[in-house]
Amino acid sequence: MNRRDVLKGAAFGAVATAGTVAAPAIAKDRIEVNMVSTWPRDFPGLGTGAQRFAERVNVMSDGRIKINYFAAGERVKAFDVFDEVAAGNAQMYHGAEYYFKGKHPGFAYFTSVPFGLTYTEMNAWIRFGGGQELWDKLAGEFGLKGLMCGNTGVQMGGWFRKEIKSADDLKGLKMRIPGLGGDVMAKLGASPVSLPGGQIYENLVSGAIEATEWVGPWNDQIMKFYEAAKFYYYPGMHEPGAMLSLSMNKKWWDSLSKADQMLIEAASSMENDVMMAEYNAKNGAALATLLTEHGVQLRKFSEDTYDSFGEASEEVFADVVKHSDLAKEIHDSFVKARTEVGSWAKISDQAYVSERNRVLDL
Amino acid sequence: MNRRDVLKGAAFGAVATAGTVAAPAIAKDRIEVNMVSTWPRDFPGLGTGAQRFAERVNVMSDGRIKINYFAAGERVKAFDVFDEVAAGNAQMYHGAEYYFKGKHPGFAYFTSVPFGLTYTEMNAWIRFGGGQELWDKLAGEFGLKGLMCGNTGVQMGGWFRKEIKSADDLKGLKMRIPGLGGDVMAKLGASPVSLPGGQIYENLVSGAIEATEWVGPWNDQIMKFYEAAKFYYYPGMHEPGAMLSLSMNKKWWDSLSKADQMLIEAASSMENDVMMAEYNAKNGAALATLLTEHGVQLRKFSEDTYDSFGEASEEVFADVVKHSDLAKEIHDSFVKARTEVGSWAKISDQAYVSERNRVLDL
Repeated sequence: MNRRDVLKGAAFGAVATAGTVAAPAIAKDRIEVNMVSTWPRDFPGLGTGAQRFAERVNVMSDGRIKINYFAAGERVKAFDVFDEVAAGNAQMYHGAEYYFKGKHPGFAYFTSVPFGLTYTEMNAWIRFGGGQELWDKLAGEFGLKGLMCGNTGVQMGGWFRKEIKSADDLKGLKMRIPGLGGDVMAKLGASPVSLPGGQIYENLVSGAIEATEWVGPWNDQIMKFYEAAKFYYYPGMHEPGAMLSLSMNKKWWDSLSKADQMLIEAASSMENDVMMAEYNAKNGAALATLLTEHGVQLRKFSEDTYDSFGEASEEVFADVVKHSDLAKEIHDSFVKARTEVGSWAKISDQAYVSERNRVLDL
Repeated sequence: MNRRDVLKGAAFGAVATAGTVAAPAIAKDRIEVNMVSTWPRDFPGLGTGAQRFAERVNVMSDGRIKINYFAAGERVKAFDVFDEVAAGNAQMYHGAEYYFKGKHPGFAYFTSVPFGLTYTEMNAWIRFGGGQELWDKLAGEFGLKGLMCGNTGVQMGGWFRKEIKSADDLKGLKMRIPGLGGDVMAKLGASPVSLPGGQIYENLVSGAIEATEWVGPWNDQIMKFYEAAKFYYYPGMHEPGAMLSLSMNKKWWDSLSKADQMLIEAASSMENDVMMAEYNAKNGAALATLLTEHGVQLRKFSEDTYDSFGEASEEVFADVVKHSDLAKEIHDSFVKARTEVGSWAKISDQAYVSERNRVLDL
């Protein structure tokens, strides 16, 4: 796939329908809605997953619920989807909630935060640890209702032009890294910026940024970051299980029947599972290609660097909880889930995979 | 919850409808089908998950598709569900495919096999690594069509009356452990038996078996195995991500519209995600209760024991692939997925959780 084709939606198409107000066409039983997104059209995983969700609802409802999907820039720009749906100009968006931490820092927790939850841990918190209720409370303040709709899994730490041997090497570094992960980098003296996917490559090649994280091998390979930065670090501390969201205009959501709400929730939940499976299935082969064909240097963050990440994360969280009672409530709930589920992970997945991979030499 | 209430379905109800042949009642658009299962009624996770799936389909279809759910023994006994659905007497079952490895050893791979895949790895294999296609091929030979519908995650190694310091301590041990995990135990000199959930406790208390595995802390706590065996081992090598299946009569499945097939698939996929989340959310607290209130001794299998498990597993797999071309095809596909996805897990989830838990002292 040509990277420029993948990215053109985000880069060029932002003017088309700005200002139009489209009420959903409801004739009898039929529902037709508009969905905007933060991803370039057909972008593997993030974009194709969102599109797959929209098509799944169409199929499941036998064409009764039609979702018109607009990639980033086709209706509104990537980072304008929140306001578009909150205002009711579109009924839903697919994106990452941490893009909207400027609205409220609590949103970061519903994508991923530094030293946060893996995919399975996140699902446990959202579904059975009070996470969904807190997300409803937060999003409700903005007229939105969110559902889990995809996950990238543990992300890579990012692409760097130079080696990062300790946190000192991060000082002054201009890096694309959104969410609270960016705030951690700032605490360590770096200069984080948030850019949508369609604008990263050009900034990295031009030198406007010196480092970037995006997702993982499968997605990053398509972006060709290796042309400008050779050191590829793992594991990322900033997004250990980036959840994607289906966020809907709450008034519209509340107007649906229980049946249609459940149909949409099941379609969204299926994408949560399918997207994660696709990343896990494709990241390994993509990493091998990066290492063997593109001269990428794989590096693991040192324990020292990770300790610094950990300290800076605590400072960032201390700032977040000062924001509001709701921010503190969300943070405390997250920490409880991390302690409980993370401790279980230690003697289940962690203990098993460690022993299995040792015995099999994987 | 009273354990006897939980278990009574499996223990007593096996006679009700044996021999009745119920065709699905289809009036116009409406579909009414019967679903049998291998779980006691309301058994947490396994049973409630299956029941939740049936109810979800009912809600999503606005009552148009009605699934009449029968727990183990309410229509047929737990291990008779396969034949019941293959014959078309019921349209679907919820269960674990490895219970039917006697029909074909390939079925074991669609629950879990020793040194097999974790939840996320399993999803990657089934959805993007050729797993579903092979499951379709295998189940199709028996007139069935299976879909993923739940997962327990990494299971505990089991309950033992005595400590297991090396594989020598397994010699002569009578243990409830189904699937290929049981075959591994047999290679090491133990005597494995396969019993449905409702019959384990009484056999353990009577001494008919000396050890048992079941699932994990949340489920095991309810079973009160700690009354008869105090040593609780982890991590289980035999079921690192036991997938539960929604298996349907293939002729019935093929008769459905694309819309209804997708609706059922989404409902099933949602349960796959929800059940796993519930286990991860509840296992930690249950384990703490077992250790503090019931005097359970938590033990980790030694590296020596794991090495023995590994060697015995290879012997078991060597037997399996001799069974048929299809068994070999399934095994080879599984091994490929384990190598690719397992290697990626090492630098993603494994590397991250290890560093996070180290820094946070979880």
